[in-house]
Amino acid sequence: MILLDGKKIAERILKDLKAEIAGVEKPVRLAVVVAGKDPVIESFIVQKRKAAESVGIDVRMYPFPVDITTNELRKRIAEIVHEEKNTGVIIQLPLPLHINKQYILNAILPEKDPDVLSSRAIGNFAVGKSPVMPPVVGAIQTLCDEYGIDYKNKHTVILGAGVLVGRPAALWLMNEHAAFSVVANSRYDAGRIIADADIIITGIGKPGFVTGAMIKQGAVVIDAGTSESEGKMTGDVDVDSVTPRASYVAPVPGGVGPLTVAILFKNLVTLATL
Amino acid sequence: MILLDGKKIAERILKDLKAEIAGVEKPVRLAVVVAGKDPVIESFIVQKRKAAESVGIDVRMYPFPVDITTNELRKRIAEIVHEEKNTGVIIQLPLPLHINKQYILNAILPEKDPDVLSSRAIGNFAVGKSPVMPPVVGAIQTLCDEYGIDYKNKHTVILGAGVLVGRPAALWLMNEHAAFSVVANSRYDAGRIIADADIIITGIGKPGFVTGAMIKQGAVVIDAGTSESEGKMTGDVDVDSVTPRASYVAPVPGGVGPLTVAILFKNLVTLATL
Repeated sequence: MILLDGKKIAERILKDLKAEIAGVEKPVRLAVVVAGKDPVIESFIVQKRKAAESVGIDVRMYPFPVDITTNELRKRIAEIVHEEKNTGVIIQLPLPLHINKQYILNAILPEKDPDVLSSRAIGNFAVGKSPVMPPVVGAIQTLCDEYGIDYKNKHTVILGAGVLVGRPAALWLMNEHAAFSVVANSRYDAGRIIADADIIITGIGKPGFVTGAMIKQGAVVIDAGTSESEGKMTGDVDVDSVTPRASYVAPVPGGVGPLTVAILFKNLVTLATL
Repeated sequence: MILLDGKKIAERILKDLKAEIAGVEKPVRLAVVVAGKDPVIESFIVQKRKAAESVGIDVRMYPFPVDITTNELRKRIAEIVHEEKNTGVIIQLPLPLHINKQYILNAILPEKDPDVLSSRAIGNFAVGKSPVMPPVVGAIQTLCDEYGIDYKNKHTVILGAGVLVGRPAALWLMNEHAAFSVVANSRYDAGRIIADADIIITGIGKPGFVTGAMIKQGAVVIDAGTSESEGKMTGDVDVDSVTPRASYVAPVPGGVGPLTVAILFKNLVTLATL
């Protein structure tokens, strides 16, 4: 089994980006909208911010109180989006539960949406007309390309249909005219589908869900799940039992995660220089 | 094997719509944009128009020459969309090959897009926030609901990833958190995936592609394929060989097709009365 080293590829992408940003006339600035306080989210934002600033991206934080209303937050984000200096805007998820998430995400114009989460950006991606890829999907494609994994002529099984992993991965594989399955229903016994997978992409947030017994000998396992367990990021894959059967594994941490951040910054630069 | 009778359900929907339209103050008007001339397309439009007018929908045709440029057509459609009397606008596909199809479809505002083909309307549907369903998908869901076919807890296999059938069907099943597969690559041997399907939705345009030998005993086969053969509409399914094995078949003609037209009109009324 070979580990897919997202961290190493991310470092190379960030190094190239740094050189590119140095040559861009207009400063690249990422606006980060956060509602509420959460120590895990905060430590994640601190890391993202450090990585951004290390490549020359200016980061501007926009914190809001946890009890802000949907309408007030939408109004404020519209102002942030229209601030010319902000070349991209991201909204830190999860938002407080009382907030209408998609309505908030839709306040971001497609040309300032490096996360590809507004319905307009998603629509552009769904019809194959987006200048950038949803970051997790960009990360997965980069891993496959780097390690010579042929996702176009294989059966990929996506576990979960969430907005960050499963849905954009499905749109991507439709654009690629691949053969793929999506399993997002815990009432359906998907054992046969999963056992047929050449490539498994998982984004369900259940630690240890994917075990060696479920997968085909030689399968590629790409863990894009993230859950927090005792202050530590954990994926969906039980790496110990998967190791003897898988050909490649993108682990958590070190696989999809660091590459996702690098692709987010790459998207930001792409949008800033359109 | 039971035939799914889309025609009968469509007649009921149209009857209900006629009553509803009679009660709507503002006239419901469908603008139909056609570029070029084609006898098959024209006969299809004549049928659609007759059905529309029979329920009280005003139809306004906008014909354009086959050699119109993309930019000119886009400009003209923008005018058609902004004409207040047009409560919905559809663009007859296929467009001439030199036309940038998605750019043309994107000229339709989501609130006047009963076909759900602009990238904005698709994006709204992809995030579960569209007031209307893509007509083919609405037709398939109506057939399943009428005949008690449980698509939420089964494995549905979609053959083809085209804009009219495969892609919207995949978005629909993601919204439903179902288990489904999409096969859109003729280089991948999808025999095992198809043989596992409880429900098959096909929209590839290859007459006779789906045969009895490919499907599981008791499978539901929904034919949404359309190709023209000797002036006659043909689906993707070889009904003779499928009949002894399938539990239900939605045939061409008489299955998805007439219902798709009824759902299109229903969408038009929904959008006109939002």
